Amino acid sequence: MDNLTILKIGGSVITDKNKEETARHSQMQRISKEIAKAKSQKNNLILIHGAGSFGHIQAKKFDLNNSFDPKGVLLTHNAVKDLNGIFLNFLSKEDLSVAPIHPMSCTVLKGGRITSIFTEQIKLMLKSDIIPVLHGDVVFDLDGGVRILSGDQIVTYLAEEMKAKSVGLGSNVDGIMVEDKVVEKITPQVFEDIKHHLGGSENIDVTGGMSGKVNELLKLAKSGISSCIFNASVKNEVGGFLSGMQVGTLVCGR
Amino acid sequence: MDNLTILKIGGSVITDKNKEETARHSQMQRISKEIAKAKSQKNNLILIHGAGSFGHIQAKKFDLNNSFDPKGVLLTHNAVKDLNGIFLNFLSKEDLSVAPIHPMSCTVLKGGRITSIFTEQIKLMLKSDIIPVLHGDVVFDLDGGVRILSGDQIVTYLAEEMKAKSVGLGSNVDGIMVEDKVVEKITPQVFEDIKHHLGGSENIDVTGGMSGKVNELLKLAKSGISSCIFNASVKNEVGGFLSGMQVGTLVCGR
Repeated sequence: MDNLTILKIGGSVITDKNKEETARHSQMQRISKEIAKAKSQKNNLILIHGAGSFGHIQAKKFDLNNSFDPKGVLLTHNAVKDLNGIFLNFLSKEDLSVAPIHPMSCTVLKGGRITSIFTEQIKLMLKSDIIPVLHGDVVFDLDGGVRILSGDQIVTYLAEEMKAKSVGLGSNVDGIMVEDKVVEKITPQVFEDIKHHLGGSENIDVTGGMSGKVNELLKLAKSGISSCIFNASVKNEVGGFLSGMQVGTLVCGR
Repeated sequence: MDNLTILKIGGSVITDKNKEETARHSQMQRISKEIAKAKSQKNNLILIHGAGSFGHIQAKKFDLNNSFDPKGVLLTHNAVKDLNGIFLNFLSKEDLSVAPIHPMSCTVLKGGRITSIFTEQIKLMLKSDIIPVLHGDVVFDLDGGVRILSGDQIVTYLAEEMKAKSVGLGSNVDGIMVEDKVVEKITPQVFEDIKHHLGGSENIDVTGGMSGKVNELLKLAKSGISSCIFNASVKNEVGGFLSGMQVGTLVCGR
């Protein structure tokens, strides 16, 4: 896909992770405006957002990664779809043409890892100048039951599958931090040296925290696709990323 | 797929087609109870429902079959997802394990006809003894923009693709009616003789009415899969169908 940009907005940015199902409307609105302003420069854009406190709390309560409770699955899925609906509403208000894609409907895992995402509908949306908006979700697994699928894993799968040109992960930190400083560039070698500094970035996280994020992005870097982790909670960082500026930490192969 | 049953409940059964976004809760509850009672006899069950007044009115207003309006697409899709959520809620209350599948997320059309539906997630749901619940929707089309996808077309596609053993279309009429009598059996030959008697079955229908339904089912009959059209608005008809009784009109190859 020509000039494909994949942008993920973390659940910690658009929700309050400490309060059940609390969306940060002002953040969603600001980010929507930044995307709208930069959109003319980005023909093919896929958005992915985390679940934050919509879903994580239910997923923990029902222990969905380890046990299978159909009611818990449905509640969790409904919660993340609610968040997706709220975000799409803000995007729409900025005259962005968006369409939701719900991973439970189009994705299969094995042992928690994506084996396939149906992408034909994504390609058609992009062709119609629509921004597809995916999200972290509960997804059925070939090993039985469901597993939690992080937005980060969707990013790397789609980036590789659809040959993204530009990949950005907007988190609630300024990038990969070591001793309060942003690491400007991370390669597999650098990661080995610093990974003991990285913990979970968030208060409630069933999807792997910052180390998990970097691991996903290093896999991508091995396929030749660089990416960056930046602070989407800070004004103009999303817009900066979409305009091609270096923001946060660059993750690349070497 | 062994012993797969596909059951469609028409939008005219679970909504009031004359009133915008008016769900018939008592019908959904009754049908959910009938499914719950019969479920033990049906290991592999896929449910599909029509959109009724959730979506049809927006689809007409935005003329979605002929023009492409991203906001209209989103409103229509959200409306049918709302209906799906209400139905799933009633199904869940009867202790049925259900999961939604939204066609916009997993389907591609060409000229309004399905070219592919991702089915791996459906198979995993069935394997986990979950009832996947799909619905009529707006879906992106290889010819550009979107088209309305009827629940009927999903029924025939999945029945063929997944080799269904039993297919039922619950409508708001007693079957195929000719001069106020139910036709017990329809073959392609019988259809030629009676089709001038068949009109649209509903007040608002962007998806083809009764002739459209029979046409879909005759295609299926050519593949060796018989089906029946019965009145899901009448008590015990859904339960009767799931228990293997002959209800309404049988559509078969010869």
